[in-house]
Amino acid sequence: MSDGVDIDFGEDGLVPAVAQDADSGEVLMLAYVDAEALAATRETGLAHYHSRSRDELWQKGGSSGHVQRVEEVRVDCDADALLYVVEQEGGACHTGYESCFHRTVDGEVVGERAFDPDEVYDD
Amino acid sequence: MSDGVDIDFGEDGLVPAVAQDADSGEVLMLAYVDAEALAATRETGLAHYHSRSRDELWQKGGSSGHVQRVEEVRVDCDADALLYVVEQEGGACHTGYESCFHRTVDGEVVGERAFDPDEVYDD
Repeated sequence: MSDGVDIDFGEDGLVPAVAQDADSGEVLMLAYVDAEALAATRETGLAHYHSRSRDELWQKGGSSGHVQRVEEVRVDCDADALLYVVEQEGGACHTGYESCFHRTVDGEVVGERAFDPDEVYDD
Repeated sequence: MSDGVDIDFGEDGLVPAVAQDADSGEVLMLAYVDAEALAATRETGLAHYHSRSRDELWQKGGSSGHVQRVEEVRVDCDADALLYVVEQEGGACHTGYESCFHRTVDGEVVGERAFDPDEVYDD
């Protein structure tokens, strides 16, 4: 990455990363990425994030099978946010919706169901 | 908002907010929102954020005229990230591109120019 963009990971070593569906353009989720997760994403072509709650590298879909194949990684003008353009297997949200952004702030459900979470997750 | 979603603004009082073009689906930018900015957005229908560098309420396009008319505000499953679905006037990025995410992490420009920043900004 000698000719690449120098990402500003900030004080906590994390940048927010938005995942967008390459086909539909739908914004699927937002999670956080550190240098390790970005490197793993670029090496494998599968979206990796850093779980803040578990403080560990997290491959999206590692347990559910709902992986994200990354077509392109973009960076914003300030180099402190990323955009993963992905092919989403199944649905992005653990609730069974295609997108984690399936509700308005008023609580109205506007997203589409992709799968039944009871059939995917053990807990 | 008594029947709305209770947003988790976290320790610093901020959540990341993604702005997406309502027509093209393009992811335009990522910035941060506090309770005041969300309230201003909902009251005016124009996207407001909280500037972390200036520590103040910031109406997108307040100086450039490149406002964002908000069609819908969505919240993610954890209620700690927002999605503004917007009609973008001009371009979202101060560099003149439609989107702040106009580069890959390798530095390749993949976005479209929307305006000449020298004609919009004084500095």
